[in-house]
Amino acid sequence: MALTHLNEHGEASMVDISHKPATLRTAEACATIKMKASTLEMIMDGSAPKGDVLACARIAGIMAAKRTAELIPLCHPIALTRVSVEFEPEGPDTINITARTACHHSTGVEMEALTAASLAALTIYDMCKAVDRGMEIVNIGLLKKSGGLSGDYEKGTPQA
Amino acid sequence: MALTHLNEHGEASMVDISHKPATLRTAEACATIKMKASTLEMIMDGSAPKGDVLACARIAGIMAAKRTAELIPLCHPIALTRVSVEFEPEGPDTINITARTACHHSTGVEMEALTAASLAALTIYDMCKAVDRGMEIVNIGLLKKSGGLSGDYEKGTPQA
Amino acid sequence: MALTHLNEHGEASMVDISHKPATLRTAEACATIKMKASTLEMIMDGSAPKGDVLACARIAGIMAAKRTAELIPLCHPIALTRVSVEFEPEGPDTINITARTACHHSTGVEMEALTAASLAALTIYDMCKAVDRGMEIVNIGLLKKSGGLSGDYEKGTPQA
Amino acid sequence: MALTHLNEHGEASMVDISHKPATLRTAEACATIKMKASTLEMIMDGSAPKGDVLACARIAGIMAAKRTAELIPLCHPIALTRVSVEFEPEGPDTINITARTACHHSTGVEMEALTAASLAALTIYDMCKAVDRGMEIVNIGLLKKSGGLSGDYEKGTPQA
Amino acid sequence: MALTHLNEHGEASMVDISHKPATLRTAEACATIKMKASTLEMIMDGSAPKGDVLACARIAGIMAAKRTAELIPLCHPIALTRVSVEFEPEGPDTINITARTACHHSTGVEMEALTAASLAALTIYDMCKAVDRGMEIVNIGLLKKSGGLSGDYEKGTPQA
Amino acid sequence: MALTHLNEHGEASMVDISHKPATLRTAEACATIKMKASTLEMIMDGSAPKGDVLACARIAGIMAAKRTAELIPLCHPIALTRVSVEFEPEGPDTINITARTACHHSTGVEMEALTAASLAALTIYDMCKAVDRGMEIVNIGLLKKSGGLSGDYEKGTPQA
Repeated sequence: MALTHLNEHGEASMVDISHKPATLRTAEACATIKMKASTLEMIMDGSAPKGDVLACARIAGIMAAKRTAELIPLCHPIALTRVSVEFEPEGPDTINITARTACHHSTGVEMEALTAASLAALTIYDMCKAVDRGMEIVNIGLLKKSGGLSGDYEKGTPQA
Repeated sequence: MALTHLNEHGEASMVDISHKPATLRTAEACATIKMKASTLEMIMDGSAPKGDVLACARIAGIMAAKRTAELIPLCHPIALTRVSVEFEPEGPDTINITARTACHHSTGVEMEALTAASLAALTIYDMCKAVDRGMEIVNIGLLKKSGGLSGDYEKGTPQA
Repeated sequence: MALTHLNEHGEASMVDISHKPATLRTAEACATIKMKASTLEMIMDGSAPKGDVLACARIAGIMAAKRTAELIPLCHPIALTRVSVEFEPEGPDTINITARTACHHSTGVEMEALTAASLAALTIYDMCKAVDRGMEIVNIGLLKKSGGLSGDYEKGTPQA
Repeated sequence: MALTHLNEHGEASMVDISHKPATLRTAEACATIKMKASTLEMIMDGSAPKGDVLACARIAGIMAAKRTAELIPLCHPIALTRVSVEFEPEGPDTINITARTACHHSTGVEMEALTAASLAALTIYDMCKAVDRGMEIVNIGLLKKSGGLSGDYEKGTPQA
Repeated sequence: MALTHLNEHGEASMVDISHKPATLRTAEACATIKMKASTLEMIMDGSAPKGDVLACARIAGIMAAKRTAELIPLCHPIALTRVSVEFEPEGPDTINITARTACHHSTGVEMEALTAASLAALTIYDMCKAVDRGMEIVNIGLLKKSGGLSGDYEKGTPQA
Repeated sequence: MALTHLNEHGEASMVDISHKPATLRTAEACATIKMKASTLEMIMDGSAPKGDVLACARIAGIMAAKRTAELIPLCHPIALTRVSVEFEPEGPDTINITARTACHHSTGVEMEALTAASLAALTIYDMCKAVDRGMEIVNIGLLKKSGGLSGDYEKGTPQA
């Protein structure tokens, strides 16, 4: 099995999808960011700031997903039909981020979901770094994907 | 202590740095990506592909750093004078990424270093996902920064 | 009736158009810019400058339309098949701008037309501001749209 | 007096500011958007959507200001040190938008403030257009500017 | 025969392709860069640098192709399904670059191939300019294209 | 003498200019495009189209110069203080393009001038390709540069 993004000479190459049919593709990716409990409180408590840290991170994630092909060198340009970014606090010091993407195309949208989750996490870091430089993004990965010849994928399920 | 990116009404706000002096700022960030041992071998062995996966990821990281202010909503535009991205394999299944940034400006370059490390990691994911969808980016964080009124920072060192 | 760009929690959300059929969509938007009569004369008289102020504004409008999804956070990326920008002087001190857009897609192109008209107007401001800082863009709005489930729209016509 | 963005042949030309000193420049621009009273209520009432329409528009305005030189053909690239966008409801059907920008540079930041105000207004339109296609942006203009050889400007004050 | 990018008034205009069918389009473009023999040796010899100059130029070409519609004012946005960039040394002082593009769309992909070849050449210039400022790009042109109503084209073959 | 854009391991690397002083840098680059005599006539004759082909190409060149650092992987972001693009017909079938750039910075602006000239030429190709697919860009190179430690350069003059 070979790396599809390298040609027979080992050179970077965008996969030629000109002859693949367009089908519905979906993907779901996560990112987890850990912080001081006091930082999470500032983000989540009932005062005004709460809304805007996550609102800002959500928009950053959505906007970044749309620009994935500008950022990841060998990604195909894709007209995404769906991007959503959700936040879920966990315990006293953690926010879980879930990004979902979809399109009708001849290639998948995993990188778009991963990019959305990553940039949402980085934006949380940016907005809170003045009070907590030690925040860490501890887990970015693909949760599931559907569509395409390589079949569906779900994290933790054995791959064919 | 308050979140600097929110004004007194809790609204998102770019920090006004118009009256801060420009000084030399540096930052260093890391990202760690875990994969199957066979994937790491494909990336690192002596055959041609090796060069291009990391070459591509390095360039993606450098180029992303330059566009940080387009991606992170409240980051100031910065004329970076340095961006470097390095890769270090660790054990049978891990690559450590270190990104370093610098500029002369009235604000720091932490987000630029974090963005470079993150996009380099995402690009490795993209280039190897056909053989290993379960790769995970397990740790993105700031290693150190220097310059500016908030002083120097080094991970693991107690903050003033 | 609810705001479609907010989910049930009031959070920003790109509308999921994954299951909507692609049809021909068109839109027409206007912008009106008012200035000193002497400024309009400089733009419109027979000398060379005339061509370039409007040529530059036209190109700015067309190029901006193509980047609408980068600028408006919840707009879907769209492969526009048509963008045109026209200018019509009115009276001694006014230029009317009309932008038209089209594509085959599962969402409309109103924002693309509005963005084209707005950036064309802002470019006229930029090119003439040295002689007339008081110029005002007095009216940006949608003139009509066609295609899509929400039906056609024409300004001044009662909406169903 | 001539248009500075056209050379002696009437051709578009970026003004050469290579020999002008850098000084502190500020600008303030406005945009006004009119809508149905029921639309303004949806944006402003105490329920959740309120936050996000304006939060999203604010971020769109701030991010657009940073990209002004990509959108307005003859604008110089500028490292903005300040961008803020504020919203003020007026009467039953109007929102006033004020954008403020600053930088230390050899050219002004008026276009950045105007671009921020315009894109914030367009984003409000986008987020509410499903319930109110007839919204209109009725007034985009410069309120004031300071710094630079051309002196300060304040709307309504006679220009030298 | 008229220039399709100008309307009946001689104004710049994006061609309206709203009613043209989507078909498979391909294009192939070349660029040739001449340099000192010692520069070519540095690029091509067996040491490490070799890989990265061309790896970097290849990625620059691929990434630029994806952004053609942002750079060329009247190009339509296109979801490219293929971009490849190849390098072939010729004689002691020359590198030939070939870029190939494809998509299913109602307009061609010639500009995308030309943009990829041009930016790959410019990147080689950038990476080697410290040792050879006199490098020249001596020939950028279209080699062939297929698809679309205007028929196929091959350089050197008489056009219908 | 070594390639400055590769580190000691032959890896791509943005040159660290953090400790270099900012001085005035200028550059001048050319591009030459050859076409059928009838194509040049269409561009240059007294009818309306004339203005817009070159107006459009000029703006494309100016706008591309501002985005050089997004296109050329290892270029530093630069706040250009000058960009100009001029066209000069030569003989019956040739247009010579000259691009000039300037900034105060610790690195040069050659790539910005080369990018402006290249994109202006590509835009002429785009606007005329419907009548002349065989156009060729036959010569892109640096004419001169000034400023910086590496000294001034003028094409055809022996380098130190």
